[in-house]
This record gives sequence, C-alpha cells and structure tokens, in this order.
Amino acid sequence: MYVLYHHPSCPLSRQIMVTMEYMSLDCEYLQEEYWYRNAKLADISSFATVPLLKCRKFGVIDGAYPILEFLLSLYPNSHIFPGSLRAISEMRRLLSVINSEFYYHVSQRIIEEKLLRLLANRGSPRGDVLRSATSRQVYYLNYFSCVIRDRNFLLYDKVSVVDIALASHVAMLDYFNYVEWYRYPTLRGWYQVLKSVPCFRALLKSRFSSIRPPEHYMELDF
Amino acid sequence: MYVLYHHPSCPLSRQIMVTMEYMSLDCEYLQEEYWYRNAKLADISSFATVPLLKCRKFGVIDGAYPILEFLLSLYPNSHIFPGSLRAISEMRRLLSVINSEFYYHVSQRIIEEKLLRLLANRGSPRGDVLRSATSRQVYYLNYFSCVIRDRNFLLYDKVSVVDIALASHVAMLDYFNYVEWYRYPTLRGWYQVLKSVPCFRALLKSRFSSIRPPEHYMELDF
Repeated sequence: MYVLYHHPSCPLSRQIMVTMEYMSLDCEYLQEEYWYRNAKLADISSFATVPLLKCRKFGVIDGAYPILEFLLSLYPNSHIFPGSLRAISEMRRLLSVINSEFYYHVSQRIIEEKLLRLLANRGSPRGDVLRSATSRQVYYLNYFSCVIRDRNFLLYDKVSVVDIALASHVAMLDYFNYVEWYRYPTLRGWYQVLKSVPCFRALLKSRFSSIRPPEHYMELDF
Repeated sequence: MYVLYHHPSCPLSRQIMVTMEYMSLDCEYLQEEYWYRNAKLADISSFATVPLLKCRKFGVIDGAYPILEFLLSLYPNSHIFPGSLRAISEMRRLLSVINSEFYYHVSQRIIEEKLLRLLANRGSPRGDVLRSATSRQVYYLNYFSCVIRDRNFLLYDKVSVVDIALASHVAMLDYFNYVEWYRYPTLRGWYQVLKSVPCFRALLKSRFSSIRPPEHYMELDF
C-alpha cells in the first residue's frame, strides 16, 4: 500500500497519480496545498513539496524523477515502461525534457503566474514572465509534435509513462487556455487519445480557485 | 570505449567527465561549443546539447540524468553509487535538486549571463536575472551546507556521484567569484576535499574566454 501526497494543479504530482492508477497499484491519495510551507510535508521531506510517495518498506520517495525510477526498479515489466536499456535511455531523455526543461521554462511559470500567485496572495500575473514562457512553449510543442508524428506516441506506438507526463503538463496549460490548438494538429490528435484514458479523465474534473477552464477543456473532440 | 561530447563550462558535462574518470571508464572526450547550433551534435541528438555519451552497444545517451542512470544500470557496484534502493532514491532526490532546481534557478542563469551571452554576442549580463539567481543561491547553498554538516558529504560519509555533481556547479559559480565563502564554512571544508580529487582538479585548469577566475580559484586552502 502506497500513500501519495499530491496536488492536481502540479503536473509532476498529476503524472505520478495517473501512473499509479494506470499500473493498478494500491495507493491512497492525499491532496496538499504545496504552495504553503506545510508542516506535515516538512516533517517527511526537506523541501515540503509534492509529489511524495510513502511506502512502508522503502520510506519516503521524494520527487517525480525518483518516484518514476523507483517504480521502474520495482516493476520493470509494467506495460507503461520500456524493456531495453536503449529505450529506457530514450524514456529518461524525454522525461528530462518534459519534467525539467519544459517545466522550468514553460509550465511551472504559467502555473505560478496564473494560479499560485493568486492563491498565495502574491499579486497579479507578471506579463513579462508569461510572455517569455509562451514564446518558449511554441518551440517545445513543435518539438513534441515532431516526435509524435514519427512514432504515434512519444516513446513508441502505444501510451507510455512519457505520454502521461507530457499530457499532465499540457492539461494545466489547457486549463488556462494557453494552448493554441489550431497550431498543433498532431498534438491535438494525441491529446484526444490521452484525454480518453479514464484515470486521466477523472483528474480533469479538478477545478482551481475561481478560475474556470475554457469550454473545450473536458471535451474529447475539441 | 565511450565517447563523451562535453564542454567544461557546462556543469552537467563536467560532472559526467569527472564521474567517468572517477569510475576509471575508458572514455574519449570531445569538447563542443554547445551554445551554437552544432551540426555534428545535431546529427546525433535532437537538441544538440551536451553532455552526450556515445557507446557502440547502446548508441547515444543524451543528457546528464539519462547518462548517470545508464552508468548505475551498467555498474551498480561502483563505489560512487549507493547500493540500497532507499539510498538510491536519496541520490536521485539530491541529483534532481542539484541538476534541475539549483541548475535552472541559479547556476545555469549565472553561466548564461556571465559567459554564454558574451560568447554568442547576445549583449552584456542582465542585472535582474543575476540578482534573482544570487538571492536564490543563498537558500540552496545553506540547504546543501545543512546536509553536509549532518553526513560529512552529501549522500554519506565518503565522496559519491552527488558530491561530484554539486562540486561541478559550485566550481563554475566560483569561477565567476559568485560564492561568498565566508558565509558557508561547512561548504568550504567540503569543497576543499572535492578540489583535491585529481580528475576534478584537472578540470579547474579550463579557462573561458577573456574572463579570469579569482585568485583563490585553484588554491586548495582558500
């Protein structure tokens, strides 16, 4: 039995949640407001951030990269992970592009400006940060589109942990209506498939503060 | 036999170089000016960045996180890696703090402003970026100091891949005289030990453009 501390507005948490469900692992989910210094989280993790995975045998696994590698070590034959070392290296490369580069330069910035500043009473969104994030976003979304066009999905021709990772970031950008879908037909087709995965779909029901997502947000055919 | 594409001014490259040497792996080093779109690199990697590790059997391993995990898979008993899954998770957590958070918020920004903009003719350093990076730096260097105080080194009581990772970032900050050493006596003691590691020391001889490091840069006792 696992316990996952998470928040649905955090794309790193969200991808671990969907991954746990997709792997049918027995897991309890505790939602934490990670933008405050949370005493319960600070007790078990130095930075008091999510995602955090607790399990009796191995203690606390802290952060998306350690959790995904931990799951790969324990369940190397899961259908969500590739089998060969060469394919695993490609999985790691893409996870690093998505969860580090794309996250720090694009999705984290947009979530911070559009949501976290509001929730933590830190003022209105800063235009220059949003502009720099959206201009970088084009570059990454075009890159991901190329990879998907070549392979159908990001890693191979079926859903893997890498698709779940990217879809978790894209969902948050789409929530704030920050994806110009007409520019990315390949990505849109791919996201329609991901949206129809039941455990991913359930998470789309989360709403944040007073911000309403655009009308197409829940639609499978948008 | 491995081939590593790297640049000594890139802390992610530098840590892989020192790790390969520390593990006594047979490796050839090719220095690449990664700030230009490099045709040779673009041929073997989508983003044409360093570090890139080439080996005959597994092709190209792209990026510091994939390379370190690849080395851990192939050489799990190396003295530089921990043995238990719990300790490996802690290694991954610290690598993620150092090579993602600290890198994107601090060291990459300082290297970009102080060196890459100069080399790529993109204008002088931007004061606001440097100020935000240096104010965040204090937070991280204090955190690393606490971890080292508790354990002697970052992971346990001897040098591991995590110490090499952090020292590679710190060396670049120190090159630009961006570490106020009097504030961090614990970190200074730890860095003195890391500096005396021969393969790390050799790399300190690299000089970048017309920028001279401070006088204490090469000294073991500073």
